[in-house]
Amino acid sequence: MNATAQSAFDLAVSTSAPRRPLRVALLGFGTVGQSVARILAERPELRDRLQLTHVYNRSVSRKRVDWVDGDVNWSEDLAEIFASAPDIVVEVMGGVEPAFTVVKQAMEQGASIVTANKMLLAAHGRELLKLASDRGVQLRFEASVAGGVPLIHGVREGLAGDQLTGVAGILNGTCNYILSRMAATNEDITPVLADAQRLGYAEADPTADVDGHDAAAKLVVLAGIAFKRFVNSDAIPKGSIRAVSSADFCYARRLDATIRQISEIQARDDGFYAFVGPALVPNHSSFGRNEGANNVISIYGRYGGESAFSGAGAGGPATAVAVVSDLLALTHRLHAGSEEWQPGQIVAPPARPYYLRFVVKDRPGILATIAAALARQNVNLDAVLQEPGYPKDALPFVITVEACEEQALRAALEEIGKAEWHAEPPLALPMLL
Amino acid sequence: MNATAQSAFDLAVSTSAPRRPLRVALLGFGTVGQSVARILAERPELRDRLQLTHVYNRSVSRKRVDWVDGDVNWSEDLAEIFASAPDIVVEVMGGVEPAFTVVKQAMEQGASIVTANKMLLAAHGRELLKLASDRGVQLRFEASVAGGVPLIHGVREGLAGDQLTGVAGILNGTCNYILSRMAATNEDITPVLADAQRLGYAEADPTADVDGHDAAAKLVVLAGIAFKRFVNSDAIPKGSIRAVSSADFCYARRLDATIRQISEIQARDDGFYAFVGPALVPNHSSFGRNEGANNVISIYGRYGGESAFSGAGAGGPATAVAVVSDLLALTHRLHAGSEEWQPGQIVAPPARPYYLRFVVKDRPGILATIAAALARQNVNLDAVLQEPGYPKDALPFVITVEACEEQALRAALEEIGKAEWHAEPPLALPMLL
Repeated sequence: MNATAQSAFDLAVSTSAPRRPLRVALLGFGTVGQSVARILAERPELRDRLQLTHVYNRSVSRKRVDWVDGDVNWSEDLAEIFASAPDIVVEVMGGVEPAFTVVKQAMEQGASIVTANKMLLAAHGRELLKLASDRGVQLRFEASVAGGVPLIHGVREGLAGDQLTGVAGILNGTCNYILSRMAATNEDITPVLADAQRLGYAEADPTADVDGHDAAAKLVVLAGIAFKRFVNSDAIPKGSIRAVSSADFCYARRLDATIRQISEIQARDDGFYAFVGPALVPNHSSFGRNEGANNVISIYGRYGGESAFSGAGAGGPATAVAVVSDLLALTHRLHAGSEEWQPGQIVAPPARPYYLRFVVKDRPGILATIAAALARQNVNLDAVLQEPGYPKDALPFVITVEACEEQALRAALEEIGKAEWHAEPPLALPMLL
Repeated sequence: MNATAQSAFDLAVSTSAPRRPLRVALLGFGTVGQSVARILAERPELRDRLQLTHVYNRSVSRKRVDWVDGDVNWSEDLAEIFASAPDIVVEVMGGVEPAFTVVKQAMEQGASIVTANKMLLAAHGRELLKLASDRGVQLRFEASVAGGVPLIHGVREGLAGDQLTGVAGILNGTCNYILSRMAATNEDITPVLADAQRLGYAEADPTADVDGHDAAAKLVVLAGIAFKRFVNSDAIPKGSIRAVSSADFCYARRLDATIRQISEIQARDDGFYAFVGPALVPNHSSFGRNEGANNVISIYGRYGGESAFSGAGAGGPATAVAVVSDLLALTHRLHAGSEEWQPGQIVAPPARPYYLRFVVKDRPGILATIAAALARQNVNLDAVLQEPGYPKDALPFVITVEACEEQALRAALEEIGKAEWHAEPPLALPMLL
């Protein structure tokens, strides 16, 4: 943004609208970018506040649509975008690069940024917030977590008066779709994942979703908002939902529970406990009842207790609402107070109960071996569950254990894992019951 | 606020903190006021941004506590408060007067306002927003609806990019406590209400809660935020939960439903449809599952679909979080863009199914009479339900009807109501199934 525009907006703070619309360059014309352009086109009342001037995309000619205002410049040349000195750059390209380089350059030359890119924020959020503060511009990212849910505004501003203690949620719609389908149909993950890919709910390479990387990046953003701390996404323990079988849903039902990919982070005295992965949740909890691709997030505060948010986690229109909300916030206030995320340390989880599922080649003495290994680590056995109807050479059964330290459980499982009667590696899921 | 302070904050917009803390006068030291003071006392990191200078209450000496900073002035004289020229007045006295007079005077002399007072906003919100705009101050009210839920920030800012179409929720914790207790225990409302009064969940005069006035005031605030329209609280149709009996919960269960006090408003071509009162909701919906004094609110948008919020609806600490969040927002930006709520018209509800409960002195021909009256208004009967075990002289039974216009149903019920076999007036509840 140039100096003339800046003074215009300083004056605008105390009047109802800026003197001229803010010039917006849209980088990326995929699902989200198209929906952003669509809302701007369909809401003419926003035109005196926001003017879309450029759309950037690779091979932009194949992207061109006739419902975007004829004055908009379609470009595949980033230099042209920068030369236009936009007030705001909307980054909806996704991925860490070239997004990081582009966003940095835009801020360096005075543009504020609106982004939907959680991977960028998880990788470089701290550095980008610092740069925004140094340059006196804003970096806004309501769209980066739970697109249709106004979580960032709600937490950053609406709960600013509280001291937040934790965040827990279902942050990845793909996993939730897969797990709620598995619960409903008793299928294993392979056919359900294939179906999800065919229907466009899961990507060809589903790793980022099913192995927890996508949810962990969102958790980094939420930790920044809730605690003003930047945690390392790589340091967050992640479990894959690939390990969950149809037998696990049978056993979960016996425990009046189901299985969801849960992301959680809690402030502890010595850092932050964090986790992303499949967990048992009560059937009748907000997590257990959440079906399909919806997101559900609970925020815990010292004074306000639990506040919960839910809605569409992804999808073009819902995510675009978050982008346009950030654009409108910028028309009110182009200069933010600076926000800094200090480094945050990931620490071990609190003691909690676990669900342990074994698949064994059945023989005498298995339970005695397991019980002894658990006892050596002072892990107390709670219940043993065995459903009928499985083959003797790949027999699943479940042991639930009372609240214990994760480290003790790991040690016991390592010992148990050395036995030769395993048909599959044991699975341990935390029980959030 | 005086001119010196104002220029200090214009400069402060682009730096991280204001030059001096904003001076805050707290009007009202009841449950919410005490919790506000408590958070300010327990969060010393806020002291360079917010300084509590005055606490006002009638007979203030009996309110004095030792954990509030010794520099704070305790006063029962409003003139003393005004003479101190506070930057912000926190109004948590409740009621329309003297709150209205006090808030107006404070804004006239340049103070911004943070209030938890939905009754004040429902009565004078439009006028107060106009005055705030004229005076260049802010009027903030996150605490006025669903205290622990950051709904106002979420909707006003986080969903600004959407075009909102409707709001529906459980906005009154007292009614939800009573109705969820009735569902659980099969008691009638009289003993449950008496218990709620004894436990402090309901007031000695429960009218504002059970007859829908409290929820209607909150709905007026939500309509302002969502649609920028000011609807007249008196024009919102209200049903009382006093009409709901234990028999209604039996019949609701047969319909896989339960009964909750629902508040809703929807934008229609010709105005707004609004309703506050008991309604049938599916057992497994977010409304049906909401127990105790919690609030749940769904916001519907053209682009983003449904976003839902839930949390503590009332209580000192949760409401105080909302007040302190507003205070912190003011430290970022003491001058808002002006917001105006144009008048909004209340119109008839859309056609929908209804639950009709009759209590009759049984005799032949009753069903024929009812069916004929409904048919004359083109209201189609869906099901007739009759549970065994009730006395012949006060026999409850239920008729559900297909989606119909409220006006047609009213006409039919008026005709039916003239029969001499009623043991109680008929009850009609919308079915939100």
